[in-house]
Amino acid sequence: MTLLVVGSVAIDSVEAPGGRADDVVGGAALYFSLAASFFTPVRMVGVVGPDFPRDMLAELQRRGIDLAGVEERPGPTFRWKGRYHEDVNVRDTLHLDLGVFGDFRPKLPPSYRDSRYVFLANIDPVLQASVLEQLNAPAVVGCDTMNHWIAESRPALEKLLKNVGMLVINDEEARLLSRERNIVKSAARILQMGPHTLLIKRGEYGIIQFAGQSIFAVPAFPLEEVTDPTGAGDCFAGGFMAELARSGDTSPAGLRRAIVYGSVMGSFVVEDFGPRRLLKLTREDIDRRYQQFVSLTEIECR
Amino acid sequence: MTLLVVGSVAIDSVEAPGGRADDVVGGAALYFSLAASFFTPVRMVGVVGPDFPRDMLAELQRRGIDLAGVEERPGPTFRWKGRYHEDVNVRDTLHLDLGVFGDFRPKLPPSYRDSRYVFLANIDPVLQASVLEQLNAPAVVGCDTMNHWIAESRPALEKLLKNVGMLVINDEEARLLSRERNIVKSAARILQMGPHTLLIKRGEYGIIQFAGQSIFAVPAFPLEEVTDPTGAGDCFAGGFMAELARSGDTSPAGLRRAIVYGSVMGSFVVEDFGPRRLLKLTREDIDRRYQQFVSLTEIECR
Repeated sequence: MTLLVVGSVAIDSVEAPGGRADDVVGGAALYFSLAASFFTPVRMVGVVGPDFPRDMLAELQRRGIDLAGVEERPGPTFRWKGRYHEDVNVRDTLHLDLGVFGDFRPKLPPSYRDSRYVFLANIDPVLQASVLEQLNAPAVVGCDTMNHWIAESRPALEKLLKNVGMLVINDEEARLLSRERNIVKSAARILQMGPHTLLIKRGEYGIIQFAGQSIFAVPAFPLEEVTDPTGAGDCFAGGFMAELARSGDTSPAGLRRAIVYGSVMGSFVVEDFGPRRLLKLTREDIDRRYQQFVSLTEIECR
Repeated sequence: MTLLVVGSVAIDSVEAPGGRADDVVGGAALYFSLAASFFTPVRMVGVVGPDFPRDMLAELQRRGIDLAGVEERPGPTFRWKGRYHEDVNVRDTLHLDLGVFGDFRPKLPPSYRDSRYVFLANIDPVLQASVLEQLNAPAVVGCDTMNHWIAESRPALEKLLKNVGMLVINDEEARLLSRERNIVKSAARILQMGPHTLLIKRGEYGIIQFAGQSIFAVPAFPLEEVTDPTGAGDCFAGGFMAELARSGDTSPAGLRRAIVYGSVMGSFVVEDFGPRRLLKLTREDIDRRYQQFVSLTEIECR
């Protein structure tokens, strides 16, 4: 099954303890699509300016990412410049220019309307809802959001969540959204808002999933070097949703496998600046690391 | 096999968001012994004053904990008073009186000398070493320590570590000991100091084990309520070491099972103030939660 994603497409400049990279492509929709493209065809919805590198657009298409939904508009592409600290969980935004992303109104080409697997990356919940409205019959809907929308657009977000199956947020966002500090209580509250599945990203500690009464936790892959954490959460979501779209298996076991594939993709992207590592990745690398996740977590077979 | 533990025995008073408890028994050796006693006979080494409750000593003995190594000396038992914040990972020490623990010099009764499974809970590394010297042939030696000894007694600690097989410390201590922020590099450094197995406690995120090239990670059990975190790390160590002593299985699979049993014990003790939950626990509770850990983490069987 093809997988639709809507979100930001950007040009980033990143400083980190291990070095720096200027003007690398980024944005949630781009990271998501690259990670997802190893599993299933992707349909991307976003906006870029004429400054966005042509060769990267060609590379995305070569990887089975449909760009019919990526508008080009006059003006600069969304640009972000950031610096990660020695503790890479902490970052400062040095510069931000929304450019053409500032008045982004996602418009789906007719060829996208039959998409059944959909991921709404972090944008205004009103725009996320408008994407769902343009679809004929979305079946598996994943969604991300951020502190800003939780604090400033709670009514729109809560309305949207009634139509979201799988919410993928980090622990801080989960606390803010639920107004609960304890993760179990927080999850119970959020699952009452609409989603049947909640995936909480805990950075270097991995992912915890709540679905009904079932809980699944997988650690992050222990890496000697985290070069650039940008895009880790988006690659997690891309690998997760794309494995679901590929397999069509949303059983508890299918969800667990998809969560591990998502964790695999998140673990790779941080190994180099921007999406560089993804562009060199092979399917064999992915499957090898999947098995390493099994070894990392396996207690015993029942 | 019996399991020897040396460490603090205390009387604690605890305030936490969910309530308070005054004058409950505590201390690393006590928590360790109580947790371990569900798996194997325990030999305890410590010191108490005449104010330590007699009925608790009788209760420990009833549970198969040998108190021949617990001295009674004139003076107050070690007393600690602390307050946990809304975020239970943060605590303030409100009052501390070392009492008879201040000049504790562990002296093993002859009946303890043949102990092969040993845990050196957090005390001065010079005293930890003196315990090993009093043993005929310790085979499996576990050890805890704390920031204070790493900063103030590094030479003695490094000397001790050459004779320690399994080091059980938290992530902050691991960073301080290794002078490395990254957990994988930190572990590699520490494994060069002597221990063949390193267990890093990550609080609400669980445990990560490094042994040679092998890594195993297990999340903490997701609890709706953490009433009192006191003793969680000691109960982890108690369950872990005692399952090893019981099974005699220090293979990679045996270690993983022991780590999960340790995690089970750590998850129970925090459910109530002091050791109350442990005193009500049954072996069936333990095995049920062990299976819940398997369900929580199981990806798929290879």
